[in-house]
Amino acid sequence: MGEHSEAVETLRWNNGRLEMIDQRVLPARFEYLAYTDAAEMAEGIRSMVVRGAPAIGVAAAYGVALEAIKWRSTSSGEFSRKLTLACEVLAASRPTAVNLFWALKRMQGVWEQHASRPVVEIADALLAEAHEVLAEDIRINRRMGAHGAALLKDGARVLTHCNAGALATAGHGTALGVIRSAVEAGKKISVIADETRPFLQGARLTAWEMVQEKIPVTLITDNMSGYLMSQGEVDAVVVGTDRVAANGDVVNKIGTYMVAVLSKRHGIPFYVACPLSTIDLSIPEGAAIPIEERPASEVTGFRDCQWAAQGVAIRNPAFDVTPAELVTALITEKGLVNQPNRQKIAALFNS
Amino acid sequence: MGEHSEAVETLRWNNGRLEMIDQRVLPARFEYLAYTDAAEMAEGIRSMVVRGAPAIGVAAAYGVALEAIKWRSTSSGEFSRKLTLACEVLAASRPTAVNLFWALKRMQGVWEQHASRPVVEIADALLAEAHEVLAEDIRINRRMGAHGAALLKDGARVLTHCNAGALATAGHGTALGVIRSAVEAGKKISVIADETRPFLQGARLTAWEMVQEKIPVTLITDNMSGYLMSQGEVDAVVVGTDRVAANGDVVNKIGTYMVAVLSKRHGIPFYVACPLSTIDLSIPEGAAIPIEERPASEVTGFRDCQWAAQGVAIRNPAFDVTPAELVTALITEKGLVNQPNRQKIAALFNS
Repeated sequence: MGEHSEAVETLRWNNGRLEMIDQRVLPARFEYLAYTDAAEMAEGIRSMVVRGAPAIGVAAAYGVALEAIKWRSTSSGEFSRKLTLACEVLAASRPTAVNLFWALKRMQGVWEQHASRPVVEIADALLAEAHEVLAEDIRINRRMGAHGAALLKDGARVLTHCNAGALATAGHGTALGVIRSAVEAGKKISVIADETRPFLQGARLTAWEMVQEKIPVTLITDNMSGYLMSQGEVDAVVVGTDRVAANGDVVNKIGTYMVAVLSKRHGIPFYVACPLSTIDLSIPEGAAIPIEERPASEVTGFRDCQWAAQGVAIRNPAFDVTPAELVTALITEKGLVNQPNRQKIAALFNS
Repeated sequence: MGEHSEAVETLRWNNGRLEMIDQRVLPARFEYLAYTDAAEMAEGIRSMVVRGAPAIGVAAAYGVALEAIKWRSTSSGEFSRKLTLACEVLAASRPTAVNLFWALKRMQGVWEQHASRPVVEIADALLAEAHEVLAEDIRINRRMGAHGAALLKDGARVLTHCNAGALATAGHGTALGVIRSAVEAGKKISVIADETRPFLQGARLTAWEMVQEKIPVTLITDNMSGYLMSQGEVDAVVVGTDRVAANGDVVNKIGTYMVAVLSKRHGIPFYVACPLSTIDLSIPEGAAIPIEERPASEVTGFRDCQWAAQGVAIRNPAFDVTPAELVTALITEKGLVNQPNRQKIAALFNS
């Protein structure tokens, strides 16, 4: 699994099945669920057993591979029909994170490349590619971590929103990868985690990851970050992203935009850890990225604990758009993009 | 109870006891708890059976009155000792809302005024004053409502944070009083309620009040208001306050500051409904107002539903400071204070 062993294996291949940590029940329970085909995997993504843009990409790749293996003894025509359907089912699981579509496209590329071969060989190639998507994700996170770690001063108090950690990726994490790499480099870093309603990725996942690795972490509710900034208690913000538009606008977990606006007001650098697979050059600006609306029951409470007054209407947008002007730098595996804009992002892909 | 009957009686005098709606268990359960002396009342305030700056003031006034009645058959010296202690216990219940101290000072004034009279007459006068504090609060809220209603256009979508409603006052509410008065004036108003972690006053109390009165209300998590503003879905913000400094800085429920900063960015008017009793001329600016830190268990979950990872540190500031520059207008019972500053606020008290 690359040059490093990872403490948290968010997704792992085990005995012909893809196992994923059930992120809905963390931190109370740490358990894996096993997936055997694309339909199961699509449901795992939709229901947020797995979440986080890079992890969704890896899961989707394995979804295609699992389906291919399932039909490896069938005819070429049947195999094609099943695999086409599998890609459609996976593509419909969640709309916002571009890594999902990026991974499907990559798997389709391998399929096309091997189209003339026997079905069993195509299936083997697809599984090998899924393994490579996973391993590559970790390598990329390590590279982003090295670039980003240089931005954090020794002693920095770093606020993050949602979970862009090992659990949001194949390992190491994007935003938390930057923090992990800074800590590995000997810096003393403390983390402030927004709880991130409604799914509580901050309280449940980021806090859990940091406690596991003994990195000091303080939990706050989402409406407290402005106060802490006003008190001079935040030195930098690092978040992940689900999709970056060609102009540098950042779509990330709902609430990111408010953190970015407050960071700007207080002169606090706002960094976005962003693998190239998360940049969507086909989308000119953030406003064109579809924002998923999720079920009302997530907002009226949490799981079985329902507290809202009966009869209220609900909005539940899962993401928001942070304009590029609020972003101090994108941290990519190819280095930093300071004050990102269309030209700098285009140059990144051409370099 | 004044010129109007109130739909929600947050506090009510019943058969020698002060009864308060238990706001910790709303909306699942609607029930009153009865209070018979100052120590009980202080605990009711501390544990947030009653909350909201004006309601805390009324509760404190009754706390003094109940203690006076309890000791109405005792000696003058004993009565004085008991009442002095009662005021101290009540003053220590919560630090931020100035109405608590305002009400205690007002009750002490009545006590001093009647100091030479028999104890039983002092007790009667204190109970009469508590009744007057309650009735006056509703009258003031109605006046603020009338001034504020004029600011809201027909069809306005009004965002509010926390609960500055009937439940935060003796009735009608401050911020929600403005909305109620606009609706009574025939305007079609819809409300967007932030859930207001960690105590969820928005999801539980504001949503409940609005549903009761059939005013359309949409619930969101605290991190969604920026997104709705960016989509042009918010026409105005109205909030209450726990204390306003002499320069117009507004202390209110944690998260208010972030809403105010986002409102400014989007050119959305940000109004603060603020009875004169909430303005503290002895405090020059917001930074000097004590901000209460509440228990960690409120942030790690909600009631018995605990979801955060074990081992995290917690911050739980209950309030934050919104600088006067972000406030479009204070809405008081004496009218509006547009773009509040030290001079305009001083003038308000001298007019």
